[in-house]
Amino acid sequence: MKENPYDNAVFFQKYSQMDRSKKGLGAAGEWQTLKGVLPDFTAKRVLDLGCGYGWHCEYAAQHGAAQVTGVDLSKRMLEVAQAQHSAPQVTYLRQAIEDVSFADASFDIVLSSLALHYIADYAAVVRSVRRMLTPGGWFVFSAEHPVFTAQGSQDWIYGEDGAIDHFPVDNYYIEGKRQAVFLGETVTKYHRTLTTYLETLLLNGFALRHVKEPQPPQEMIETTPGMADELRRPMMLIVAAQKM
Amino acid sequence: MKENPYDNAVFFQKYSQMDRSKKGLGAAGEWQTLKGVLPDFTAKRVLDLGCGYGWHCEYAAQHGAAQVTGVDLSKRMLEVAQAQHSAPQVTYLRQAIEDVSFADASFDIVLSSLALHYIADYAAVVRSVRRMLTPGGWFVFSAEHPVFTAQGSQDWIYGEDGAIDHFPVDNYYIEGKRQAVFLGETVTKYHRTLTTYLETLLLNGFALRHVKEPQPPQEMIETTPGMADELRRPMMLIVAAQKM
Repeated sequence: MKENPYDNAVFFQKYSQMDRSKKGLGAAGEWQTLKGVLPDFTAKRVLDLGCGYGWHCEYAAQHGAAQVTGVDLSKRMLEVAQAQHSAPQVTYLRQAIEDVSFADASFDIVLSSLALHYIADYAAVVRSVRRMLTPGGWFVFSAEHPVFTAQGSQDWIYGEDGAIDHFPVDNYYIEGKRQAVFLGETVTKYHRTLTTYLETLLLNGFALRHVKEPQPPQEMIETTPGMADELRRPMMLIVAAQKM
Repeated sequence: MKENPYDNAVFFQKYSQMDRSKKGLGAAGEWQTLKGVLPDFTAKRVLDLGCGYGWHCEYAAQHGAAQVTGVDLSKRMLEVAQAQHSAPQVTYLRQAIEDVSFADASFDIVLSSLALHYIADYAAVVRSVRRMLTPGGWFVFSAEHPVFTAQGSQDWIYGEDGAIDHFPVDNYYIEGKRQAVFLGETVTKYHRTLTTYLETLLLNGFALRHVKEPQPPQEMIETTPGMADELRRPMMLIVAAQKM
């Protein structure tokens, strides 16, 4: 249930070589879109679920957050976060997202970047986030897009010439575990429909402020090999919701 | 721009043989989901954009609507609507959805069932619907799902044995015209992303109340050949939004 591929040494080594790991937010194709839907951090208490290297925690601190708590299950991730992305306002905590339990109304903003597709019980996380948020507080997350997680392989279908032909969707309404290959390692992820992502928020008293499928910026498409193919399928979903 | 395949005699003949045409709402796989997000019609003024046979107009009238206006571009469709689904409160009007222009705040509820993917300028329709709605009024629509419209063919990819293997997604972020084959006829539809469907509503002052990808009901899966495959891909999107 509580997946932690990032403490697999081989996987972690490969992850650390990704552009987003070496160069940070600016090298992440979805960052411009995510940044565009973030609320003002000034004097806010921020929780980051699945903080990884701590790039978003550092960003929140640099943009005026009063207090930032980054939670991740991976020891290796948190070591990098602590060494490279610490700040007086930032605290890192080693815990599974499912186990995070601060007092009611402890936070003004809850972030989660590309972590919720590792979570089996999304509804429980939504309820918990709601409880920990103040009224009017924000829950902003990115997750792998249901189109990307549905079939399971997360790989393109190739033509006989070896070129990409299209991206496959299958078993869309069959939610649950998928075994995907990411960086050459088999990783367990959880597929859920767009309906589940959004209706669970609506049913739990959130107002949807933004629902965006990020596209890589034009300059990244021009300079990063293979990035143009990311216009052919949606890979991520970004949601900004506010507790009513 | 203003597509009207339904006045093609061959197409119309085939359409009239579909279960949803012969048996109405109960035979439409998405009806239970759409019905579940409809607001109370009692004493409401209702506009149906792309009313077709008028099933939804009749439903609104039967459920207490004070006044229902059904608009469709197809003469053949409206002939059936007038003959089979008329009621004292219901008026049918032959016009393209893009040209519909009633006075400000003329309606409490605007419906549109599986018509918006024929519209090139969705944003213009959203602005127009907003203008024609009273504050707090509802815009509820179904449209073909972006997953279903992206690649264009709207057909499965089959294995060597002739069985369905998966559904293809391609050119997801490339919005615009697609030539799909529906009932053996080539029909022009417009693909747009989920982001466009939802963000256009949010940017125009609508609150999202429901975003649902309908699944066929279990009994329909058991009794209708091929319906189980509709669990493998999302075919429709249903949105209920309220003017703020």
